[in-house]
Amino acid sequence: MKCGVFDSGIGGLSVASSILKAKLFDEIIYYGDTARVPYGNKNESTIIRYSLEAMEFLKNFNIDFLVVACNTASATAIDELKKEAPFPVVGVIEAGVKAVENEDKNSSILLIGTKRTIKSKKYEKFLREKGFKNIISIATPLFVPLVEEGITEGKIVNEIFDLYFKNIDRKKIDIVILGCTHYPFLSNSLQKYFPNAKLIHSGQAIVELLKNEYNLTPKKSTSINFLASDDPQHLRQKAKEWLNID
Amino acid sequence: MKCGVFDSGIGGLSVASSILKAKLFDEIIYYGDTARVPYGNKNESTIIRYSLEAMEFLKNFNIDFLVVACNTASATAIDELKKEAPFPVVGVIEAGVKAVENEDKNSSILLIGTKRTIKSKKYEKFLREKGFKNIISIATPLFVPLVEEGITEGKIVNEIFDLYFKNIDRKKIDIVILGCTHYPFLSNSLQKYFPNAKLIHSGQAIVELLKNEYNLTPKKSTSINFLASDDPQHLRQKAKEWLNID
Repeated sequence: MKCGVFDSGIGGLSVASSILKAKLFDEIIYYGDTARVPYGNKNESTIIRYSLEAMEFLKNFNIDFLVVACNTASATAIDELKKEAPFPVVGVIEAGVKAVENEDKNSSILLIGTKRTIKSKKYEKFLREKGFKNIISIATPLFVPLVEEGITEGKIVNEIFDLYFKNIDRKKIDIVILGCTHYPFLSNSLQKYFPNAKLIHSGQAIVELLKNEYNLTPKKSTSINFLASDDPQHLRQKAKEWLNID
Repeated sequence: MKCGVFDSGIGGLSVASSILKAKLFDEIIYYGDTARVPYGNKNESTIIRYSLEAMEFLKNFNIDFLVVACNTASATAIDELKKEAPFPVVGVIEAGVKAVENEDKNSSILLIGTKRTIKSKKYEKFLREKGFKNIISIATPLFVPLVEEGITEGKIVNEIFDLYFKNIDRKKIDIVILGCTHYPFLSNSLQKYFPNAKLIHSGQAIVELLKNEYNLTPKKSTSINFLASDDPQHLRQKAKEWLNID
């Protein structure tokens, strides 16, 4: 069984890493559209077109599942992808929402993501449909460049937290949804900053969804391959660092 | 006389602004390749292809000059553009180097830019050819997202300066070359941080080059039009804010 994992760039490696560890597939094909990253600041029609092209490309590898490991693509193109796909398509947003659905409906939820993800209001819509009422959404566009610079803790990180979260009573946040695949790298700092919150990580959420909805069970081993529309060498280097593989 | 100004995104507006104020042309056509921004993290062959496509597109408007207002494209694709162009092509890198050529050759020069621009070593090569010896090059990839978030002064900016410039004796820097079109928005903070330095701004450098090398003189008025490969509305909005025009 083969799983395609698609992201606009390298951030989705955090999702691929969780799927790899869970061994739900014989093979994972990761495709990063690095020639056109980031999607977050692009128009809706452009994002849909790019996402469909990525799926077409992954079809060449006879995948049985498609994981959309990009929040922007999940927020913008998931309906079109599902309509055109001959296999199941699961996105990080539905997975993130599923991961909290059994929590207390009065929980204070903080949703953070790129401008595009927040503006799409997709997470909010789904969370409200599940009965959650206390949702604060904040776009935190500096987090991706911080992570890519390897700055994930310390003074600068905390001051940028203060900047984005200045109006929030941080002890009262029960759940923080990491609405961008780069954000798990800030988990330690975010957990300290929101001491009473449960952090929702897209990769873990996807694994739970695949297990529960599609009854996928662990294989003996899983191989993974990395493809990119630009500079695949850089993607493989990051994969080595972040996934701790050869 | 018509001038095309090409950038990967909106940063080149700082260059367009200088050309507009100098009134060297009857008309300026600004084209931002916003569907594929940023170029800085892409492969050389990809950047060359994108730059040639942008020039082809601008040819439709019968331009007489092409200003490459993107440091990444200037560092990577300027030779190919000049070879293919039926009109003069000037880039921000040659302009920046021209702007300092009469300075004392023992000056301490700090060059800052995106990873790609710094890695290309183009500025360094040209500066060394002019006889400069004391050149420090530092990639400062967090500056673009800071400017795009509107954070151009204060504690966070200074701490990020401290991070990038920790090994530099900042009072001894004589010249700071702003090797990215977003950086002029950080001019005030940089000038305070490097109190004895002259800052080199690409837009002003381009205007000087056009005046001196091509004997261009001010027209009565200059009009400007904005085109973008994605979300032209956003580009026009930023142009309104940054260029102070309708």
